[in-house]
Amino acid sequence: MKAYLDNGSGAPVDPRVLQEMLPYYIEHVGNPSSFHSEGFKALKAINRAREQVAAFINADPTEITFTASATEATNLAIIGTANRYKNKGNRIISSAVEHISTVNICKDLTRSGWEYEQASVDRYGVVNLDILDQLTTDKTVIVTVMAANGEIGTIEPIKDAAAIAHAKGAYFHTDATAALGKIPLDVKQLDTDLMTLSSNDINGPKGVGALYVKKTIRPRPVIIGGGQEQGMRSGTENTPGIVGFGKAAELAQQELTEESKRLTELRDHLIKGLTTTIPEAHLNGHPTNRIPNNANVRFSYIEGEALTLSLDDVGVQCNTGSACAAKTLEPSACLLATGLKPEDAHGSLVFTLGKANNKEQIDYVIQVLPDIVKRLRAMSSITPQELK
Amino acid sequence: MKAYLDNGSGAPVDPRVLQEMLPYYIEHVGNPSSFHSEGFKALKAINRAREQVAAFINADPTEITFTASATEATNLAIIGTANRYKNKGNRIISSAVEHISTVNICKDLTRSGWEYEQASVDRYGVVNLDILDQLTTDKTVIVTVMAANGEIGTIEPIKDAAAIAHAKGAYFHTDATAALGKIPLDVKQLDTDLMTLSSNDINGPKGVGALYVKKTIRPRPVIIGGGQEQGMRSGTENTPGIVGFGKAAELAQQELTEESKRLTELRDHLIKGLTTTIPEAHLNGHPTNRIPNNANVRFSYIEGEALTLSLDDVGVQCNTGSACAAKTLEPSACLLATGLKPEDAHGSLVFTLGKANNKEQIDYVIQVLPDIVKRLRAMSSITPQELK
Repeated sequence: MKAYLDNGSGAPVDPRVLQEMLPYYIEHVGNPSSFHSEGFKALKAINRAREQVAAFINADPTEITFTASATEATNLAIIGTANRYKNKGNRIISSAVEHISTVNICKDLTRSGWEYEQASVDRYGVVNLDILDQLTTDKTVIVTVMAANGEIGTIEPIKDAAAIAHAKGAYFHTDATAALGKIPLDVKQLDTDLMTLSSNDINGPKGVGALYVKKTIRPRPVIIGGGQEQGMRSGTENTPGIVGFGKAAELAQQELTEESKRLTELRDHLIKGLTTTIPEAHLNGHPTNRIPNNANVRFSYIEGEALTLSLDDVGVQCNTGSACAAKTLEPSACLLATGLKPEDAHGSLVFTLGKANNKEQIDYVIQVLPDIVKRLRAMSSITPQELK
Repeated sequence: MKAYLDNGSGAPVDPRVLQEMLPYYIEHVGNPSSFHSEGFKALKAINRAREQVAAFINADPTEITFTASATEATNLAIIGTANRYKNKGNRIISSAVEHISTVNICKDLTRSGWEYEQASVDRYGVVNLDILDQLTTDKTVIVTVMAANGEIGTIEPIKDAAAIAHAKGAYFHTDATAALGKIPLDVKQLDTDLMTLSSNDINGPKGVGALYVKKTIRPRPVIIGGGQEQGMRSGTENTPGIVGFGKAAELAQQELTEESKRLTELRDHLIKGLTTTIPEAHLNGHPTNRIPNNANVRFSYIEGEALTLSLDDVGVQCNTGSACAAKTLEPSACLLATGLKPEDAHGSLVFTLGKANNKEQIDYVIQVLPDIVKRLRAMSSITPQELK
């Protein structure tokens, strides 16, 4: 049995998406800036993708800037907004459970005089709105709170967070990488100014992302050059990638309701199966208000790395913490922010489910993991005797 | 007959390259930072691509940073180096025929106190090394001269330009987008510190580029985040794109000698065919020291846009100037720098040949273009009577 359950780190491209992309690799290869029929075809394909992505979040197509990754989109959102509106103030506020890219971008800005503070979260990882409100002063230029946390699955109250930012005259950005395609996102209803979008997280190709930029805000470009993407992001357009992202958005929009329901059932089956059959196995993140594809479970007394490798040996791929933060050997900053002790944070597994997963695979994990946990606990010197 | 001759703006992916990419879309989709077998597979594939790209320019794999475009690579090279080494000085020098992305990056830096000057070129577009030497003072941090000009085809004396930069203690960057795969490039022999590389220009996928960064220099990252690419460029790796770029580099290295010879013959056939059969048709750029795939011919008294559209009507795609600069309606800055008057610069066609082109297609262009030129000249009020 094979069960790839690390879709949040890297997901398969939907075959229907790949099908749409293929003609743009070999057949229609014009540069959308070229003044001939092949250039016009490329431009048309990109504009269609822009409409598809915009429609998915209820934006206007002109409000979508394609980038090469969610990380690049967040750079454009935060660095670009900070640089453009630095006369308004010098503060940036985020939640304490943002993605490592957001945190590192904000920290980097402190080197050029910006103040960066994080609003704490509760035990489930939900941002404390009172703290967010206190930290957001009239010197705050940007408030950024993710739409949902890809590691612990918790959905954040971004509509409320946006209202807090706006009340203080700050712009609001949300990283919707983990939320897109999992929960409905409507930029008008949420009243967000900027939203980071990822293609691969909705089974589009890697190497593509986008930033929603409300018409009333204009971040300063981070990548300078030929003035593509309405001057917001230069570089020859990745036509196949953009076309793929567009198709993925269209499919995700059509299938969100049904697929969310299916994934929620699988997820809850997995969480229940693990936490009821394995002693001292606990869910991380919010018990109910979580994205449908995420199950994050901690197993006391053992290390996540040993767990992932043991599961990999029997055909199951999952993660411990976030792949994006794997370069540090530190315990998950996100779990620590929820109040876990470092030793507890270390023994967590993140399962991110996707389109290709089914109940048989989840049953398989529920079947194989108890023995793995037992074996690893038996080898661990900190395991209490009664669990060995 | 179809003849796509705008490969410099957008090129087909080599089918052998696409074949290598496909497994990474659906089958092997792990994140190279993930701690399991699918993550390790992705990491291995990326490292192999890094070796392939490095081998092509005689670099060490650790000196290759993958980006999402040549433009992004040039941003990292110039902005990153300027920001890292600003204590060394405040001057940036380039040739007068750099790509619009390089020019706009350098101009953008003048907003934060940098001085930017361009060394003039001769009538063929070759940078004037004496002027370059004069402009490069001990306050110069970066000198950037492209390896070859993608619009007029001229190959630049970058080894000499690098020596000038180094004699003044400045770093040397070259944009090798148009040169890669067309002429041999050896970073050690050229003694360049930074080199921008493009995937699509060697029939790899769009949306991928790379920056060669000599071990002795460390630009400040432009895109901040999870610390991928040895901390130099963050964002989840575009595994299929990177794999494709690697394969394209491997193939280009194997086939460079033979393909250059074939393209040179086609190019010279095209240039001769057009300039001998059409009155007042003149080659732009250097007559001999030019990349094998570029023919840039100007036709007095008519507009490039009308020419490209008329050619497109009969199945031939080419460009007028650079697609990347098409957003401005200005005459080509590059042709003006070679001393052409604006009215002459306007009537130029850029043919960029590629792997998929053959002699029949070139013959076809030579056959159809004279009548098109004649017809457009007949409609132009500035055409002398004897040419109508």
